[in-house]
Amino acid sequence: MPNDALDRTTRALAELGGQRVWSLMVTIFGDLAQTRNSAIEGPVMSAIMAEMHIRPEAVRVALHRLRNDGWITSEKTGRTSLHSLTELGRAQSVAASARIYANPGEEGKAWQLALIEEASNVTRGQMLSLGFAPLMPRVYIGGSDARAPEGALTLPGGPVPDWLRSQFVPEGLASDYAALHSVLLEAESTLTGPKELSPLQTAVLRCLIVHNWRRIVLKHPSLPAHLYPPTWEGPRCHVLVNTLLNRFPRPRLDEIAQG
Amino acid sequence: MPNDALDRTTRALAELGGQRVWSLMVTIFGDLAQTRNSAIEGPVMSAIMAEMHIRPEAVRVALHRLRNDGWITSEKTGRTSLHSLTELGRAQSVAASARIYANPGEEGKAWQLALIEEASNVTRGQMLSLGFAPLMPRVYIGGSDARAPEGALTLPGGPVPDWLRSQFVPEGLASDYAALHSVLLEAESTLTGPKELSPLQTAVLRCLIVHNWRRIVLKHPSLPAHLYPPTWEGPRCHVLVNTLLNRFPRPRLDEIAQG
Repeated sequence: MPNDALDRTTRALAELGGQRVWSLMVTIFGDLAQTRNSAIEGPVMSAIMAEMHIRPEAVRVALHRLRNDGWITSEKTGRTSLHSLTELGRAQSVAASARIYANPGEEGKAWQLALIEEASNVTRGQMLSLGFAPLMPRVYIGGSDARAPEGALTLPGGPVPDWLRSQFVPEGLASDYAALHSVLLEAESTLTGPKELSPLQTAVLRCLIVHNWRRIVLKHPSLPAHLYPPTWEGPRCHVLVNTLLNRFPRPRLDEIAQG
Repeated sequence: MPNDALDRTTRALAELGGQRVWSLMVTIFGDLAQTRNSAIEGPVMSAIMAEMHIRPEAVRVALHRLRNDGWITSEKTGRTSLHSLTELGRAQSVAASARIYANPGEEGKAWQLALIEEASNVTRGQMLSLGFAPLMPRVYIGGSDARAPEGALTLPGGPVPDWLRSQFVPEGLASDYAALHSVLLEAESTLTGPKELSPLQTAVLRCLIVHNWRRIVLKHPSLPAHLYPPTWEGPRCHVLVNTLLNRFPRPRLDEIAQG
């Protein structure tokens, strides 16, 4: 099914960068085959990758890498390979999905400030993984459900002054969101008929949306939307991702196989 | 009335340092003649100062300085000078008295953290005068009634981690309090009979207690006692100051004149 709007969207999403094949594959497994006992047949994987203009050698290399990393496992039944997530791969995929597929606004409005001891050996990376964004040395902000390390001073947040909104936002991510936002906005207005896409096209579209979204969203903690400056497109991207994924529901693997 | 315990206490208090004559005089006016229409007669002032071993020339110089600063005014009635606070002197004396004569524990337990904007031109000195103690650059803590400058992020305080208690305490003041505490503790246990002191001795004792107390207490904001580390003698000094001032009530000026 030729579809100009889809071509424009998939090309624009692919051009956002960060499309390493093994990483795209992680997205595909997470979106289409995360449940235990589900597997992607070799030809289905090939079809999806071909639709994204990725060469068969690159697909083979990526599958090999993910097997080596213990992320997926492959077995042959007759002439067909069946690729599925390992327990390790599934656990990490499930953990990331909580952020990637969260409903917009689900993070609530309550927030907190955490102050860590100067001598504390809690690193910035640890605080990020606990859901806290660095504001300045020793001072972090997080959603109210973030669990601060022991010994930290934590205070529930109140009204937010404007200057705070711009002080913890990583500029790189702000521009990544702005770029993604303009592509999603175009997609949302041009890709209006879900029935016009084949299951394979739908799988590719979802993969590229989820992939570009997760590349950014997993790089910063989940904070209530009102903490961000008005120019931060994160929450608006979130709404568009949600809208598009609901408009183009996940196809069944056996539908994709039929092209 | 010779009194060894009193001599030991007044000598120990005088030895704590910072006994500039004009500054002692400010304390005397604040303690004995703060109300409008009250005045200290020249001979009464001379008697108090003599009891503190201060030479008459030093008294004259100090009176001159306070007059020049607009803090006091002097007028002659017959052969006697009458010294009294000006409106300016009274206003400042009254303002300081709120801290100096506060009841222990009056500051309550609630506290707050204030975070000021990086680009803010609010200085550390301004924050101190607003009742906030500096914890680290941009971060201050204050009692719950301290009024943060506009634009600051303020968060109500909660449970206090131990490390916080030692991070905002100025070391110099901590040792000043420790020195004052040991003198006051000795005074509290040896000066048990208020009737044994003459009105003049009482005036001098009060003046030296208030003077050494105010020299420290006015240098830091009033914070709830539980925010300080256990080694900080501020709250215990406060209790002893309060006990001694209640035990030796302010004498009337006409009693002091009688020696």
